[in-house]
Parts: sequence; structure tokens; C-alpha cells
Amino acid sequence: SIDAERLVRRIQELGQIGRDEDGKLIRLAASETDKAGRDAVVSWMEDAGLEIAIDRIGNIFGIWRGTDTAEQAPVLVGSHIDTVINAGIYDGCYGVLAGIEVIKTLRESGFVPSRPIAVAAFTNEEGVRYAPDMMGSLVYAGGLSVDEALATVGTDGTLLGEELEKIGYAGTEDPGFLQPHAYVELHVEQGPVLERMGIPIGAVENLQGISWQRVTIEGDANHAGTTPMAMRRDAGHAAAKVMTFLHERAVSSVTPTVATVGCIEFEPNAINVIPSRATFTVDLRDPDEQRLKDEEAALTKYLQELEPAEEVTITVERLARFEPVIFDKHIVELVEVASNHRGLESKRMTSGAGHDAQMIARICPTAMIFVPSDGGISHNPREHTSDSDLVAGANVLLDVVRHLAGK
Amino acid sequence: SIDAERLVRRIQELGQIGRDEDGKLIRLAASETDKAGRDAVVSWMEDAGLEIAIDRIGNIFGIWRGTDTAEQAPVLVGSHIDTVINAGIYDGCYGVLAGIEVIKTLRESGFVPSRPIAVAAFTNEEGVRYAPDMMGSLVYAGGLSVDEALATVGTDGTLLGEELEKIGYAGTEDPGFLQPHAYVELHVEQGPVLERMGIPIGAVENLQGISWQRVTIEGDANHAGTTPMAMRRDAGHAAAKVMTFLHERAVSSVTPTVATVGCIEFEPNAINVIPSRATFTVDLRDPDEQRLKDEEAALTKYLQELEPAEEVTITVERLARFEPVIFDKHIVELVEVASNHRGLESKRMTSGAGHDAQMIARICPTAMIFVPSDGGISHNPREHTSDSDLVAGANVLLDVVRHLAGK
Ligand SMILES: NC(=O)NCCC(=O)O
Ligand SMILES: NC(=O)NCCC(=O)O
Repeated sequence: SIDAERLVRRIQELGQIGRDEDGKLIRLAASETDKAGRDAVVSWMEDAGLEIAIDRIGNIFGIWRGTDTAEQAPVLVGSHIDTVINAGIYDGCYGVLAGIEVIKTLRESGFVPSRPIAVAAFTNEEGVRYAPDMMGSLVYAGGLSVDEALATVGTDGTLLGEELEKIGYAGTEDPGFLQPHAYVELHVEQGPVLERMGIPIGAVENLQGISWQRVTIEGDANHAGTTPMAMRRDAGHAAAKVMTFLHERAVSSVTPTVATVGCIEFEPNAINVIPSRATFTVDLRDPDEQRLKDEEAALTKYLQELEPAEEVTITVERLARFEPVIFDKHIVELVEVASNHRGLESKRMTSGAGHDAQMIARICPTAMIFVPSDGGISHNPREHTSDSDLVAGANVLLDVVRHLAGK
Repeated sequence: SIDAERLVRRIQELGQIGRDEDGKLIRLAASETDKAGRDAVVSWMEDAGLEIAIDRIGNIFGIWRGTDTAEQAPVLVGSHIDTVINAGIYDGCYGVLAGIEVIKTLRESGFVPSRPIAVAAFTNEEGVRYAPDMMGSLVYAGGLSVDEALATVGTDGTLLGEELEKIGYAGTEDPGFLQPHAYVELHVEQGPVLERMGIPIGAVENLQGISWQRVTIEGDANHAGTTPMAMRRDAGHAAAKVMTFLHERAVSSVTPTVATVGCIEFEPNAINVIPSRATFTVDLRDPDEQRLKDEEAALTKYLQELEPAEEVTITVERLARFEPVIFDKHIVELVEVASNHRGLESKRMTSGAGHDAQMIARICPTAMIFVPSDGGISHNPREHTSDSDLVAGANVLLDVVRHLAGK
């Protein structure tokens, strides 16, 4: 079993890196705080005796080559350490630190692997600063060219490539340089299912599709006091209608579709000026590709009807689009068996969040292990998982990796 | 008559002061660009032979004392030169520059006044950077203490008092130091009425009430992918509902009530995070005080019902509240008579916008003169009034002032 105390301690320690003056955890991809977090992760990888490799999109790998196994495809574990704004400490970090712990434990136990074992910390999984999300793993899996990804402009106007250079994590390896035998990602559920059912381990068998769009509505600025309601081309009002449409459609649907407007901006954003422009993001998800397409089509239709009705001009940009993924049956079964051996109940389930596993599944057999999130809360400083659940999940990962990399 | 060419030239010239890199006119109250605009206005006041006085809230006065009239209450004209974001060039500036022109014309024509004539440029009329709007004239009229006003925190976190110090316009006169005999404000209509009716002069007999509030909705940040619709406390969605309610209520009402949400902000404002907080402004106006109260009450009731329904917490701050104002009958008649003498059709009308005249009406007989706004467009770079309309309005002001300050 892994060193429970060390794992929990490192999760807490990494969770302190990137706190602002108000104590909020903000470690956006390729920022100065991300650099500090990366440096800590690299030092822990080195402490575990791992060889460090950084690829051109900034993904960090800690590799245990083993003996006489250099030619073999490695078993890869990992996740990401970038965070959202005002984040919790577990999302992503747990999978990276548990991965380091697993390899360290196996090495120190005298385990002789039949293939290398590596742990990855992928760049910009959250997608908050640079879209799309899961960018590092997407590039790694060949779904996006590294040059295109490095040229991405962030919400703050920065270029990802320049920011990676600045923090010293623009590596030289070509993404995909290690082609894995299998990938297993351990993560907090970030949703309410496991906690509600009182089950400690999720054997994640699929992951829902994600559609991210940015909608820009152009109306006409005019005076809030002198412009009769009937003469307005109010971009803000049109945006509110879209938001209400999306939310009410998702709420009233019997499907598990979720719809979120997370970002909004008005121009000129002045109290007595009718907004000339409203820009907002739309996050749509569904485990079923056809249903997700239907939801996107419903939004498109709504916007097409809104344009003439509100006399506004609407443009839509696609920021990310990932189809639902079905994970590898065999690895899902390994997770179930490993849980069972440790006396832990497990449940097959769907991931509501996007994960690097979704991308790496394109290039090798992949699955995920979930542990419960208190209250189903994530992307929130109150995100929490009990130490015992964290340790249980890491031990299941240990057993699955031991099996995948064993003789 | 006034020097038409000079008036038009100065309006254009002042309209170039405060353009940003993109050519947008932004001369927010007490900013560096406001300082540049103020300096130009002061130089033109000096050119007209006026005595300059600055009061503690930064209002600028150009005073023509006349001879043997020093003891008399002055006739005051004027307006403001601060702007909204991405503004037109006429709003406010027209009244100040025409005022200077009128006094210069009277002086140079050998006119002997029975009382001083002064022109004012009031501080922070727009209220975009510091609420409430019409702040300089409100303080001048004794409706807000100067210390309270100077302590106002702007949308950019600055203190008005410090900003006035910084630009050198924190004067020493006590607001109210000149108690006017009468106040006349010339302004572009900023609405569609005069243009639609083909009438060049508005004799403004009243001004609608203004209610500004800031609404903050607190929900709970959570993951956009993993949180079922039924478990959300989405502050952004709740805000969209309020916006839709306000707009649809105003649109469907038979009253002239207008409702505008000009500013909005989400927190954390991240694409895959349900907003934990939404803050937005509400601008409600109606020429009838009881109806305005009813509209405010309808919003309060809606928010009270929304709180439990969406499981959010809502707080409301009042940013400004001004009752409708009825202007002085006698001055309104003078405007009609002066228009008539010049062969200009005029029309009694209501002001949809707030104006310094609304505040100064508290301390002396007051009225306003409007000229048409092309397309009813204002608070927009396309704000426009033809040169001939501008000149006609200034000549009506000249005649009204000549009458009010004559023997
Ligand atoms: N696990 C996680 O929060 N990923 C971020 C991408 C997303 O699902 O929005
Ligand atoms: N005239 C004018 O635009 N005043 C600004 C205050 C307001 O009416 O919103």
C-alpha cells in the first residue's frame, strides 16, 4: 500500500501553492503560480527516482524505465495540476500526486515491472485560461497540432506558447513521444453520485460529450433614459433570453443534459447605456452524442429566431467539442477487481467532467477511477474528499498499475 | 446671434479630447482625459473674459460679473463635459460651449446686464464612474454633502476626492457659493421625439424620475459538467431571469416606463464553473413618481420570490434615486417665445435623460432647451445633431438669457 500520510500531506502542500491575497487558489495554466506548482511536482518526481521529460506543449512526465524494459510501451498514470479560479485542492492534483506515490511505492517494494511506468501532469486541462480544455492531452494524442495549441490566445490576451516559455516549461520532446500501453487516471468525482450511494470507488466506464461555444450578440448602444423600449436593440436583453432558454430547456428535459453560462461580458458596460454587445460562453454536455447534437441544434435554431426578433446580430465561435468516450472494458474490470480485493465497494459510472483520460483514450486502452466528492462540490474552494477515500483510491490505482505493468 | 462657426468648431475640438487608441471617446469624470477637456473649457472661458471659480466638488464656473451687478443673483447656464464610455461629442458639451458662446456674444455686443451671467460645467453628470449621476449639481443644490460625494468609490475602485485632487480640479469654493436667479440648460434631446416630428426646439417642461439600483445575487460555484440541473444554485441564471422579467414588463406595459440592465459581472466568470455571484445594475425611469415606485416595488417582489425559488441570496443597493421634476413655467414660456421670434417651431416635452437642470431646479427657477438628435441616438459614437440645429438652439438660449439678465 502507498504511504497514506505522505500522499495527503503533498495534496495539502500543493493546494497552498497559488493562493492569492484573499486566500483563493488560482493556478491557471502556464501562469507564475502554475510554474511554482510544476516545480514542486518535478521535485517530488525526482524524489521518487523518476526521469523527467517535458514536451513542447509543457506536459510533464516522470518516468520509471525499470530494467530491460526500455523498449516496452509504458503504463501511464496521471492527470493535471492547473486549476480553475478559486478552486479546490483535489481536482487533478490528486491523480498526479497519487501517480507519483504509486510508482515510488512499487519501486521501493522491489516490484519488477515488465514495462516502464510513467506519471504525467498534462498542461491546461481546465481550459479556463486557454480553450479548449484538456489541451495538453489532446495535443499529446494528436488531436490538435502543437503549433496551433501554442498559438492559442488566452482570456487575458496572452499566447500559451509565450507563457510556457516564460515559466520555463516549453519542453523539447514531441508530444506523443511515449506511446502508452495503457492509461489510468485517478480523480475526485466532482459530482454527487458516489457520496449519495455511499460507495468509495467509481469504475468510470464512459465520459460525456462536451460542447463549448462563445456567443456574441451585437445590438446598438443607446441612452437608457430616452430610448423607448420598442426602439431598443439591447444585446444584454437578448443574451438574458438565451441564458433563460438554455437553462429552462435543460431543467425541463428528462435527459441528463447540462447547460451552463459561466462567463459574460457587456459593452460598454455602463449603467445608463443599453449594451451594444454581449458576449457569453455556453457549456453543453450529454453522455449521448446524438442528444448533444440535438441540444446544439436547438441553440442554433433559437439564435436564428432571436436575431430578427430582437434586431441583433449573433455570431457563434466553437471553443471546444469532444464526443462522448467509452473507456476500455478490461481496465474498468481491473478497477472493479482491485476494489473488491481491498474490500471496497465499487460502481460503474459516467464522468460528468472532462478529463485527460478522454483524450488519451484515443491512443491507448484507458479508464478512470473516481473517489467521492463531499456534497458533489467541485470548482469551488469547498471541494473536499476524506483522507480515507483518497488513500483507498490511490491503493486501487496501485493494484491496477501493478497488474498492468506486471509480468 | 452667436458665432456659429466658432461654436461648431469648439464642439468638434472638445470631442477629440479623450479618444483612446481605437478612437473611442472616453472622458469619464475626474479622469486624466476629463482634465484635458476641463483645461480647454477653462481656456475658452478665459478667452470670453470670464472669471473662473472651481468649487470643492470640481464644478467649474465662468462668471461675467457685469458692472454694478455684483450683488445680484446670477443667471446660470451650463451643463457638463464628462462622458460615458464610447460616447458621442454633443451630450453635455454642447450646453457648456453654447453657454460660453452666449456670454461672449452678449459681452461683445455691448449688452448691459442687470445681474451677473455665469456658465457652469458640472462634475460627474454621467454617473458612469461614480454614482449617483448629476453628482456635481446635486452637491451644488445641497442634495448631497460634499464630503460624502468626495468619498464616493468608483467602478474602478478610485475615490472621487483623490481623483479630483490628482487632476487639479478640487477647488476651494463651497458648492452653492453662487445662488442663481435662474438656470437654463441647453442639451441635445438624446431621444427620437423632435426628429420624428420635424421640430427644431424642445421646450422641456419636466424630467422623468430615475431609479438606479445594483443587484447582487449569490449562488454556489460548482462544476458545469458534473452538477445536475436540479442541484444548481446558479447566480447567473437567476440574474438572466431578473433581466428578462424587467425587460418584458417594461415592453408590455402601456406606460412610458423604461428599464435597462447596462452593467453585469459574473464570478468566478469561468467557462466550466456555475457562477457563484452575479452583479448587475438596474436603471428604471418614469415621468410619474407613483408609477416609478410601482416599478421598484414590482422588482422587489420579483426578487423576493426568486430568492427561495432559485435558492440564491439577493442584496440590493440603491445607487441613485431622483423624483420627477417639473420645470419653471415662466422659463418654459420664454423658450417658446424666443423660438417663435426666431421663426423656429417648438414643442413642450419631457426629458428622458437626467440632467444637471434636474438638481439645480431645487434651488432656483429652471428649464431646459432641447435640439433634435439624429435617429434618437445617444451614449453612442453615432450621436449627432446638425450644425444648423446646434446653432438654432444656442441662439434661443442667447435670447432667453438676454431676457432673464436684461434690465
Ligand atoms: N475535471 C475537470 O474539472 N476538467 C475540466 C474540464 C471540464 O470538464 O470542464
Ligand atoms: N444627459 C445624460 O445623458 N445624463 C446622464 C444621466 C442619465 O440620464 O443617465
